Amino acid sequence: MQETRLDTARIRAARQVIDPIFLDTPLYRCEALEPALGCMVSIKLETANPVRSFKARGTEVVAGLLAGSGSPAVVCASAGNLGQALAWSGRGRGLDVTVVASRFATVAKLDRIRALDARLELVDGDHELARERAADIARRDGIRLVEDSLDIETCEGAATIGLELAAAAASFDAVLIALGGGALATGVGHVLKACAPGVEVICVQPLGAPAMTRSWRGRRVVTTDSTDTIADGVAGRRPIAAVLDDLLLVADDAVLVREASITAGMRMLLQHAGLVVEPSAALGIAAILEDRERFAGRHVVTIVCGSNVDMDAYHRWVGAAPPP
Amino acid sequence: MQETRLDTARIRAARQVIDPIFLDTPLYRCEALEPALGCMVSIKLETANPVRSFKARGTEVVAGLLAGSGSPAVVCASAGNLGQALAWSGRGRGLDVTVVASRFATVAKLDRIRALDARLELVDGDHELARERAADIARRDGIRLVEDSLDIETCEGAATIGLELAAAAASFDAVLIALGGGALATGVGHVLKACAPGVEVICVQPLGAPAMTRSWRGRRVVTTDSTDTIADGVAGRRPIAAVLDDLLLVADDAVLVREASITAGMRMLLQHAGLVVEPSAALGIAAILEDRERFAGRHVVTIVCGSNVDMDAYHRWVGAAPPP
Repeated sequence: MQETRLDTARIRAARQVIDPIFLDTPLYRCEALEPALGCMVSIKLETANPVRSFKARGTEVVAGLLAGSGSPAVVCASAGNLGQALAWSGRGRGLDVTVVASRFATVAKLDRIRALDARLELVDGDHELARERAADIARRDGIRLVEDSLDIETCEGAATIGLELAAAAASFDAVLIALGGGALATGVGHVLKACAPGVEVICVQPLGAPAMTRSWRGRRVVTTDSTDTIADGVAGRRPIAAVLDDLLLVADDAVLVREASITAGMRMLLQHAGLVVEPSAALGIAAILEDRERFAGRHVVTIVCGSNVDMDAYHRWVGAAPPP
Repeated sequence: MQETRLDTARIRAARQVIDPIFLDTPLYRCEALEPALGCMVSIKLETANPVRSFKARGTEVVAGLLAGSGSPAVVCASAGNLGQALAWSGRGRGLDVTVVASRFATVAKLDRIRALDARLELVDGDHELARERAADIARRDGIRLVEDSLDIETCEGAATIGLELAAAAASFDAVLIALGGGALATGVGHVLKACAPGVEVICVQPLGAPAMTRSWRGRRVVTTDSTDTIADGVAGRRPIAAVLDDLLLVADDAVLVREASITAGMRMLLQHAGLVVEPSAALGIAAILEDRERFAGRHVVTIVCGSNVDMDAYHRWVGAAPPP
């Protein structure tokens, strides 16, 4: 295949600097989900770790490099999971971490960022405004800006999931990957195309935040004016050209799913798999629900990429009243 | 120490016959739980696998031996998790599996046993009646009876958790272990006493099913006439003498907790850790809640041993209405 910005040898090297607590996550068949979905389903579970998402794989790489180079400070924009992960990775290495987020971000994510001793700055706008503000801070203070999906370390960290999937790839046919900025999709996709080219790489995005999927389909960056989805972790409006270029090389498809399918997916993961997941982590199940025929009889892996939710909203989404 | 029925070399060997999908489960610090508990808390998560409990570690050992010896059939009594695990392990090895359970058992557990192609026989009584019936079937049909906690393979399988904990034992002070028949407690306890004797081994049982704890305290088998707890996985009335003997050698303490503490523990694991757990898996958190002073400032590991729940009951326990 044509070359992406990623390099499999570097991804293997990334494993060496990531705290093992984030590696070799559970990958297991969940038969209880299968009657309702009409296909074999395995779960790659990225939530059983100190930050409850896959993002620390990337921030471990970034923070390791920064600590090694003596750079004391770092800033990122985040919908919450990257910020929490960077706070965790930075704290352990004595870094001064600033996270910029939308004031509309998931409260539980913001609370955890603060609890991990990061400086949290809120902007009165969406994630794209947070990205601008983080870049301003980096320029002003002369510190490292971590740009999710653009910075190669974030892709390489996510790509270590691909190595773990590739090791088991003989048993499955397709991987469903939540698509936001693209680090997860390009990272995992790169490794699978390199090491397990028979596996179909399918990206899934909400209809309410379709910018990267439309860009992939149009083979050029397409932005949107707004987003309208509960899947906060993937709600970007301005895809990054370099990431799109990689995605065009490694994704076999990119599909859009409805909000009702996302909540149905969350409900199924709770009821049949006993898993609390955030909306972005239910995108894969949503994609199966919307196109059962495509997956009928096949073995599909879905990456459960995060579980950071506000419980009131979660109970509303899955149809249960919140605790009193 | 005096010798239990377990042998650390055999436990290491057991790892070789257990499907890796059940081994090396996540062990991670969960800081979000800590402000409410007043101590450092790490979770050993035994639910992210095809049967959602630790029990398959033991049934893999049993089924491996049976398949190797050409024995085609096996029967066990179970509150649900052992049966589900034996059904899973037996199916993969072509064994004919019969599970005897109480007709009052958790419906989700019974459904999964059936879905895994096991023969399910229900008795009109509690788990102790199921044990008698399973023994009758084994005698009648001349097949292997798997007796949880008595059969050394069930203890050895559970003990492999102890090996994984011992490898990380330098970082923590105590382990909280759900106490039912005793396989988990004696297995994990044996390894910790052998390999990490500085770690306190604390067993936790519901006040409503206190037989083994009373037996441990009295140093002789104490039975009860009934049980009254939502923690179905540990609700036994007749402790096994040989298991008690082992427990006396490896447990530093055995404590009883109230039902309200168990549901509070389940609620905390949901709200702060994003984990759905069955009541037995919340016993450790319940023990901390009931004796904060004892654990203050210490680092405690709690084994989250299962997540098989009926969702309606679960929502009732954690205080949320069930989905419509």
